[in-house]
Amino acid sequence: MKILILGADGYLGWSMAANLFSSSHDLFLVDNYSKRKHMKSLKRYPLLETPLVKKRIQNIKRKGVTKFYQLDCSKYVDIHKIIKNIMPDVVIHFAELPSAPFSMINTTNSWETLRNNLQSTFNIIHSLKDLSPKTHLIKLGTMGEYGTPNIDIEEGWLNIKHKKRSDRFLYPRQGSSLYHTSKIMDTDLIWFYTRMYGLSCTDLMQGPVYGLYPNKKLDDDVAPLFTYDDIFGTVLNRFIIQAIMNQPLTVYGTGNQIRGYINILDSIECIKIAMKNKPKRGELKIYNQFTEQFSVLELAELVRKSLKKININVNIKKVKNPRVEKENHYYNAKHSNLKKLGLKANKLNEKMIIQIANYCMKYKSNIKINTIMPKVKWK
Amino acid sequence: MKILILGADGYLGWSMAANLFSSSHDLFLVDNYSKRKHMKSLKRYPLLETPLVKKRIQNIKRKGVTKFYQLDCSKYVDIHKIIKNIMPDVVIHFAELPSAPFSMINTTNSWETLRNNLQSTFNIIHSLKDLSPKTHLIKLGTMGEYGTPNIDIEEGWLNIKHKKRSDRFLYPRQGSSLYHTSKIMDTDLIWFYTRMYGLSCTDLMQGPVYGLYPNKKLDDDVAPLFTYDDIFGTVLNRFIIQAIMNQPLTVYGTGNQIRGYINILDSIECIKIAMKNKPKRGELKIYNQFTEQFSVLELAELVRKSLKKININVNIKKVKNPRVEKENHYYNAKHSNLKKLGLKANKLNEKMIIQIANYCMKYKSNIKINTIMPKVKWK
Repeated sequence: MKILILGADGYLGWSMAANLFSSSHDLFLVDNYSKRKHMKSLKRYPLLETPLVKKRIQNIKRKGVTKFYQLDCSKYVDIHKIIKNIMPDVVIHFAELPSAPFSMINTTNSWETLRNNLQSTFNIIHSLKDLSPKTHLIKLGTMGEYGTPNIDIEEGWLNIKHKKRSDRFLYPRQGSSLYHTSKIMDTDLIWFYTRMYGLSCTDLMQGPVYGLYPNKKLDDDVAPLFTYDDIFGTVLNRFIIQAIMNQPLTVYGTGNQIRGYINILDSIECIKIAMKNKPKRGELKIYNQFTEQFSVLELAELVRKSLKKININVNIKKVKNPRVEKENHYYNAKHSNLKKLGLKANKLNEKMIIQIANYCMKYKSNIKINTIMPKVKWK
Repeated sequence: MKILILGADGYLGWSMAANLFSSSHDLFLVDNYSKRKHMKSLKRYPLLETPLVKKRIQNIKRKGVTKFYQLDCSKYVDIHKIIKNIMPDVVIHFAELPSAPFSMINTTNSWETLRNNLQSTFNIIHSLKDLSPKTHLIKLGTMGEYGTPNIDIEEGWLNIKHKKRSDRFLYPRQGSSLYHTSKIMDTDLIWFYTRMYGLSCTDLMQGPVYGLYPNKKLDDDVAPLFTYDDIFGTVLNRFIIQAIMNQPLTVYGTGNQIRGYINILDSIECIKIAMKNKPKRGELKIYNQFTEQFSVLELAELVRKSLKKININVNIKKVKNPRVEKENHYYNAKHSNLKKLGLKANKLNEKMIIQIANYCMKYKSNIKINTIMPKVKWK
């Protein structure tokens, strides 16, 4: 199979590619390094400065084709040409600005998030509809599209009964950042083109991801990006870094914000399951891609307890929430579809947290502690 | 009051301005003439080549301030500066590409519709939140955002009961063109910023508009644009033009597509009602802005019968539907909120159709009959 991975330099994109290195598929990787550029300009750095994709590919010897193209998916001519040349069986689309705080810094970054994400999705889908409508498009969405409604969150779709009549709709969504709003729009856009032109698309509503991608064959030369800062990091990675720096684990507001989390190992597995379950023409499949629900406070508590076992003793500290979001809310999100298709969850436990901490400690001297406390405020 | 009208050259924008000329409000008009440019490049022309806004303003003598700025609302610096200088009490935002067929011509026009509409709304709302958050933003949406669901269409919001719990959501929407999808995204964007920053916004879900704006004081020098072509025209205007050219009234597909229609007189009245009913901070008011539901076939039949009275005899002809849309569907859309606030509908009748036809006949020699049959196909 020819698999085109867009956004292959990122935490998820590179982990996905690295996983597929052991397969016989032909891999075509694309990135424009925009996340690296934005991180640099905001003085945020990953734990480990991993080499560029081209260099990382050279570090790996494999049989199937592996090609890298440095290009911007939000430039129509470029992505159109790549799709025309490759005619991929599957496109996995990670090529988006992934940060809620980044999208709330100022007008420039807000618009850049909206433009980049929508224009990339638009270009990819327009190229597919014109050139290769049978290609399976797999797109990373986010659980954050749903927000925190007072009813159960279903998997993408909702049957609504109203005044004795009924219909099926995309689950009504409202996010708590402009980034999340851009992903809501992405879903609307993909669903529009899927039903108009009979495309085959999968939208994966993913919760915050954590963990390492510990492919035993991979060493540091080919490790994926690991971020922990206030803008590009995700919460569990951040807590672990705070702990190993002997800083209190900072919880925003009450800490009662509940989300669905997923280990990056499972995240990759989910995408592979999606690949094996191609939607029929005109169908948009939506899966909720997470394995466990936690409140932020529970997560902090779990990190605190786990790392105590290796003699790291830290407190949990509540700080003023820089975001505008509900801090006490109902949350019950369905996530059974991927399980039914074979996902075996790697649940979060003490051992796993210690493993991540041990990895991070190897690079302790790289940690920039002043990039952890939240600088971006919604208001 | 200081009223800023964005998109003041258009059918609705100029009609709104012309109505307010008899008030004492200070009027600030903005347009970049992009619709005229797009029409010209696609060889579509209005019934009457009306003068540019500046010239039309000169033709009117009035007491209050009336200023025109030629600028593009999708350019942040320009619209930000205007809002900073004026600090308007109300912004009425018509500054969008309004055509479903235009948005489906090709990749360039599709993206241009999405970009222009979203970027304009984004710039306006970002300027307001930073400079003038108390300003009332009134935005023209479209009934087409709802599509044709199998349940009743409520006014913008829907209370959903699900598994014994309930919550209130934006009514779930899906449109049948990229233009309509861009308006869905507009609504999501406005609702996001309204609830985040306590703005006061009104979104008017308007049905297809028809008719003249017959301000008795206005002569041809200041008349609004009247379009009837396949790309920029609306359906009733198109039928009337076909009839006076002795052409059959062309109905797309079965003609059973039902929509809610509104006379431009009422459309202007609705916006004035919205102005008088400013939402409180953090509230997005949504009204369904139409007065009567018709199927396309009923509309054609009404035109045929009405114009028979003035000895115009035409047939109705079904043509292959160039669009992808449901041709037989349930449709029951609520539209009582504006009525409750005082709207007295000008219902469509024979007299009104004859009046529009008589106006159009004055310019019969301008009519370009080859621009009426649909050239843009969804597939």
